[in-house]
Amino acid sequence: MLRAEVQVVNVGLPLFADAVREQGRPVEQVDWRIPAGGDLAVVAALTRLYGPASDRVEAANAEVLRRLDGAKPLLTDVLPVRDVVPDAGERTLLHCGPAIGWADVCDPLRRSMRAAVVAEGWADGLDEADRLLGSGGVALEPANEHGMVVPMASAIGPSAPAYVVEDAGSGTRAFAPVGQGPGEVAWFGRETPAAIERLRFLRDVAGPVLAEIVHRNDPLDVFGLAAQGIQMGDDLHLRTQATTNLLVRGWLPDLVEIGGSAGAATARFLAGNHLFYLTIAMAAAKTLTTWAEKVPEASIVTTMARNGTTFGVRLAGSERWSVAAAPPVQEAMYNPGQGPDTSAPDIGDSAVLELVGLGGAAAAGSPAVAAFVGGTMRDARRATEQMAEICVAESSRFTLPAMDFRGTPVGVDVRRVVELGITPKVTTGILHSHDGSGQVGAGVATAPPACFVDALLDLDRRLSG
Amino acid sequence: MLRAEVQVVNVGLPLFADAVREQGRPVEQVDWRIPAGGDLAVVAALTRLYGPASDRVEAANAEVLRRLDGAKPLLTDVLPVRDVVPDAGERTLLHCGPAIGWADVCDPLRRSMRAAVVAEGWADGLDEADRLLGSGGVALEPANEHGMVVPMASAIGPSAPAYVVEDAGSGTRAFAPVGQGPGEVAWFGRETPAAIERLRFLRDVAGPVLAEIVHRNDPLDVFGLAAQGIQMGDDLHLRTQATTNLLVRGWLPDLVEIGGSAGAATARFLAGNHLFYLTIAMAAAKTLTTWAEKVPEASIVTTMARNGTTFGVRLAGSERWSVAAAPPVQEAMYNPGQGPDTSAPDIGDSAVLELVGLGGAAAAGSPAVAAFVGGTMRDARRATEQMAEICVAESSRFTLPAMDFRGTPVGVDVRRVVELGITPKVTTGILHSHDGSGQVGAGVATAPPACFVDALLDLDRRLSG
Repeated sequence: MLRAEVQVVNVGLPLFADAVREQGRPVEQVDWRIPAGGDLAVVAALTRLYGPASDRVEAANAEVLRRLDGAKPLLTDVLPVRDVVPDAGERTLLHCGPAIGWADVCDPLRRSMRAAVVAEGWADGLDEADRLLGSGGVALEPANEHGMVVPMASAIGPSAPAYVVEDAGSGTRAFAPVGQGPGEVAWFGRETPAAIERLRFLRDVAGPVLAEIVHRNDPLDVFGLAAQGIQMGDDLHLRTQATTNLLVRGWLPDLVEIGGSAGAATARFLAGNHLFYLTIAMAAAKTLTTWAEKVPEASIVTTMARNGTTFGVRLAGSERWSVAAAPPVQEAMYNPGQGPDTSAPDIGDSAVLELVGLGGAAAAGSPAVAAFVGGTMRDARRATEQMAEICVAESSRFTLPAMDFRGTPVGVDVRRVVELGITPKVTTGILHSHDGSGQVGAGVATAPPACFVDALLDLDRRLSG
Repeated sequence: MLRAEVQVVNVGLPLFADAVREQGRPVEQVDWRIPAGGDLAVVAALTRLYGPASDRVEAANAEVLRRLDGAKPLLTDVLPVRDVVPDAGERTLLHCGPAIGWADVCDPLRRSMRAAVVAEGWADGLDEADRLLGSGGVALEPANEHGMVVPMASAIGPSAPAYVVEDAGSGTRAFAPVGQGPGEVAWFGRETPAAIERLRFLRDVAGPVLAEIVHRNDPLDVFGLAAQGIQMGDDLHLRTQATTNLLVRGWLPDLVEIGGSAGAATARFLAGNHLFYLTIAMAAAKTLTTWAEKVPEASIVTTMARNGTTFGVRLAGSERWSVAAAPPVQEAMYNPGQGPDTSAPDIGDSAVLELVGLGGAAAAGSPAVAAFVGGTMRDARRATEQMAEICVAESSRFTLPAMDFRGTPVGVDVRRVVELGITPKVTTGILHSHDGSGQVGAGVATAPPACFVDALLDLDRRLSG
């Protein structure tokens, strides 16, 4: 028998703590797991990246962070994709996520590609578009590799209108298409006549009107307005309602002065489109990551994108994609009659928002996001806190009233992701997996760990080489 | 010496607890004060109203609450005041707060009255307007006694455009003027040419355009939209930004289609007016209180209004005003160079919002209000919790994400106010006390206890009679 009182702190497997507790003794349980699941090669890489290589990594990360948090992206223009991405070639579609061949493209993205081919006038109908795509008659390129990000199952032709967002200090530009709005739309994987007509409407009507409005005003401080939106319950990914409304009220006089049938049609489009700000915020986020990714030797993620088949990440300082299978969207709410069986995997480039302190990182301030992650604001706060565990800093521009005005987490460090086994959570929509009916729900996707492990090992190789 | 350990619970004066604590003993302090400050007549009235008369009071309160929480006010029209308040007479100004004679009117309200007299064409200039008002040539009537509520230092002539808000179920209507917006405006106590011109603009340009927009749409569910705004940081009193933006985005297509110089001017007015929804919400609140005040024998407050000189309340079931001196706005933030010495007392009918679960009652959800009550969201939450102490129920329509989606407090019970010595907090703007320069800051006013005591004693007399 022990004479003194036994004081137990159990680190790791809770079985031991349970055993002690059953004997009526107090026990402190510390939730600790073997880093990187105990994979020795990964543990060795982590040991180097936190040890001998850490000075180089930390210095690089500091510069990456300065760029992610410090750049000031301004909306300066709306132009056709061919004018802003001239290197893409005339018969090219820029699509979401990592590079992919037609044979591997998922159902909703195939439909979106066919709709874009018809809208561009490269084919007279969907069947001809399908043959053209199947025969390699249209080049498919990741938007991310051309300074652009596209939401959900987007495939963007050269005539589509794109936002031009610039950081004047660094001279960095990035692009995103004008959002297609709700309903029968190609970015939701629809290829109906209405979806094709929407693409033509954006090109012929809304694009030119939006360009004129942007020209009439001072360049828009995209994240200045987004910071206000976060105070009003937006996460800027699943929900952009407040920020959209702030923008639209500011544009009101221009829209009325432009008037005419084009002005009226654009007004109707804006009035019914509470996700309008999404792609403006995405272009701004891409401006930051485009500048940040030029820094070598960093462990911070600067690309995170999905094509519905694969989920890919890239670290600052590397053009190499690390890919894994696209995950399902698990914390979800579905339209009636829909569910996991009818849901396509996670898709779109919008996860760039999670890399700059928005989306899942800003969950704590958003009642709309709370509905998906457990229902209470405490659940939403936990999502932000979990993101903070894998991030190196707090945003100086996006602050959360519900967390005493702390900044949202920014700078996803692949070392922390792999060490803790916690990957970013991405707030997103869900598309039908195969019948072309479009959005079936919305929820939160958890990024797959494998691509982060791969990126970590590659960083270790580059630093050891 | 006491042998056992001393356990101390001190009720009331903290001096005793402090003395125990100084001797190193643990002590629980209970914050209890003598009800109603120990005034024996008031304590006797409270004893009757909580005792023998309580069945009657509770039954009446339940019906008042059903009306305050259950009515569905819809915005149905925008009409000149003379069309909705025909009994007021042609040479009448409807003003904020309890009845008042010209000699007692405070400086900012005098200026507002002169501006309205000139805008109505009753005088050619401010001097003539002053003489007309001083000689009794214009009737002054409390807006509240004509089914109308007016914000800040408003004085409204018969040609001013007013919102018509109706609860179809009860057939109740109430009114509030179209908000005058920011800057050089009469409701802030300004009488400059620009302030007078704004009144004419509302009458001749914005009023007719807003009427046409309202006619083109289904009646607006005023509190349905406000409930969304509360999820987005509005308290609907100090801040109506989110709700205004929701409304304006919905009205966008109509504005563009109406177009022309009137449409463009109205669009510019809306784009620069983030408090636009304030008076729409006030008219809706007045619809509820107008229906509720018809219930006799209740202890719930259904009028709370200030004219800058006096602060008045009325209980449901009584047309009698209980008045006290208007208080200063104490939890305040001032423009540079301004402060308590240059601030007029609390003014306006907007405190009707605090009676239906908005304003101070909704503080917990509003970062903007938090800035005035201590800076953190915890401070804002305390303001709502304090309001809950003197209210009989929680709103079923206005819920606060930050408080686990609990409803905002609704139904201010004069018995609780007097018993606890806690009066409603009203979020509000502050006007210059004497130089006509308009708004000098914003903050939170605490209603004066005396008028609640007077209303309680009157209720006791009515029930005992």
